[in-house]
Amino acid sequence: MLNGSVGILGYGGLAPAQAQDTLPSWNAGPTKQRILDFVRATTDRSSKNFVRPAERIATFDQDGTLWVEHPMYTQVVYALERVPTVVKAKPDLANVEPFKTVISGSREAIAKLSMDELLKILEATLTGMSVDDFRAEVKRWLVMARDLRWKKPYTKLAYAPMLELLRYMRVGSYKTYIVTGGAQDFVRVFADQVYGIPPEQVVGTASGISYEYDKHGRPFLTKDPKLLLNDNNAGKPEGIQLMIGRRPYAAFGNSTGDRQMLEYTKAGGGEPLAMLVLRDDAQREYAYGPAQGLPATMVGTFTQALYDEAMSKGWIVISMKNDWNRIFDSSPS
Amino acid sequence: MLNGSVGILGYGGLAPAQAQDTLPSWNAGPTKQRILDFVRATTDRSSKNFVRPAERIATFDQDGTLWVEHPMYTQVVYALERVPTVVKAKPDLANVEPFKTVISGSREAIAKLSMDELLKILEATLTGMSVDDFRAEVKRWLVMARDLRWKKPYTKLAYAPMLELLRYMRVGSYKTYIVTGGAQDFVRVFADQVYGIPPEQVVGTASGISYEYDKHGRPFLTKDPKLLLNDNNAGKPEGIQLMIGRRPYAAFGNSTGDRQMLEYTKAGGGEPLAMLVLRDDAQREYAYGPAQGLPATMVGTFTQALYDEAMSKGWIVISMKNDWNRIFDSSPS
Repeated sequence: MLNGSVGILGYGGLAPAQAQDTLPSWNAGPTKQRILDFVRATTDRSSKNFVRPAERIATFDQDGTLWVEHPMYTQVVYALERVPTVVKAKPDLANVEPFKTVISGSREAIAKLSMDELLKILEATLTGMSVDDFRAEVKRWLVMARDLRWKKPYTKLAYAPMLELLRYMRVGSYKTYIVTGGAQDFVRVFADQVYGIPPEQVVGTASGISYEYDKHGRPFLTKDPKLLLNDNNAGKPEGIQLMIGRRPYAAFGNSTGDRQMLEYTKAGGGEPLAMLVLRDDAQREYAYGPAQGLPATMVGTFTQALYDEAMSKGWIVISMKNDWNRIFDSSPS
Repeated sequence: MLNGSVGILGYGGLAPAQAQDTLPSWNAGPTKQRILDFVRATTDRSSKNFVRPAERIATFDQDGTLWVEHPMYTQVVYALERVPTVVKAKPDLANVEPFKTVISGSREAIAKLSMDELLKILEATLTGMSVDDFRAEVKRWLVMARDLRWKKPYTKLAYAPMLELLRYMRVGSYKTYIVTGGAQDFVRVFADQVYGIPPEQVVGTASGISYEYDKHGRPFLTKDPKLLLNDNNAGKPEGIQLMIGRRPYAAFGNSTGDRQMLEYTKAGGGEPLAMLVLRDDAQREYAYGPAQGLPATMVGTFTQALYDEAMSKGWIVISMKNDWNRIFDSSPS
């Protein structure tokens, strides 16, 4: 069946071996077939579900959909590790919660922080500096930081099957966007390098920005401790409207935080695609699907209700265990 | 000199007559030359000012830069004409200012409305409805409405030289954005058709958006009467950071409302381009440059201070009178 899409997607120039399987990390089966059928149906001019290239918008959640989110969102790890620097600049914070708990270093206590306390930490660590300083700081950190389980930089923990999917959809003239509950400016630092997604195609939780001047009269942008867009749950379709201005035709997520984005995508005309990554591979990655409660530091997870909704509405569930023959790119880090 | 850019920009496929002048509505002279030199220098790999394609971001103000803004921004005309519909739905407004003045129909009184009163009108007429209804309403209006002087639809009053410039920059792999003080959702309705700029490349003044459900449980997006981004003055670089996430390498404006966008663009490295359209052609369009005061309904105009700043900082002033051999496309409307 892939032969059918070769001409349409402009694979003519690829070597036959590559054209034969553009999604090599995906096991043959109904999930992979749905993806191939979807791209073929929407890019083939003779198909009744053909979609004009300009309208081929595909949105991807990041944490847990494109890369590892367990045991903590990478951005939260970054924020927690920045707390000592922030407290050094403002020593009074050392005696104020939730900073006191973070400084204590007690993993157990940190794991029990509430979402409100976490937001305070994110605000204190991700704002109040220039956009340029923030970017430089995150870049430096990403080079140094290592995931505890894999001992690799976080940027090496993107899912190989999803990287293939991103490329495959772009070959089909889909414009690929990240729509993340994570901080927009954080993800923009590495999205191009890791996912081939430029900053202008990253929509995320965003703080206010102020245009200011330094003492030499040079203008710069600074990050305000003021939430402008909370890009979770209903905030995802809202953020999509604000930043993209049209409805996606394909949407990918992995948790209740993505529910409304998938619902909104499916509510458009035609036969749009909605997919959810189910974390059911304890051996190769993690398993914490419907059975598990929501950790305080996570916005959403794959609940039983979400699973049931997916089944009843034709959203496709991707089983990491069954649909993926490898999780990560094995090239040297 | 244009020969030099033919290969670089991939003009190889164009007929020689087209390649000879890609900006036919621009008179030969220093302004046109600066544009040609800029695009050549930033797209030629051997040039010291070469800019990677991904970083070729060009931002254009709309009102007064890409199309006619006099005697009133088109969006303000739309808002005023919608007032009777809004008052019909909420009759109490008929006795409340500024709606009372608008309903009176007195042009003189309407012209004296303050910016605050105007904002009230914009809020009442451009929000409080679904995104889809708003879009349909604006589409309908644009087909019917006529500019009083030219008796043409507003969408026919884009400046031909600027349309050529947009195309020319896109051929040079510049990603062209509108960054307007006008309402983002309003401009998105026609930007693709008029300028070849898709909705996701329109940054503008934006209201809040809410994700809601109708009585059948179908989701929809609604426009809240709450200002999220005021995309004027310092709001332009702020909006650029929010929506694009990187600094433009070329910026085009026509008023003090664009000052910070040009300043921010020029403050980046390399040799970016900043240009201002000067309205000095009373015969073919309008002339209301440095000499004139700021009408209440306008956010900014081309003041003497802006002109002086442009001269001192190497921002290039485009004279409509001298640099353009035609203002509008003469094809039938």
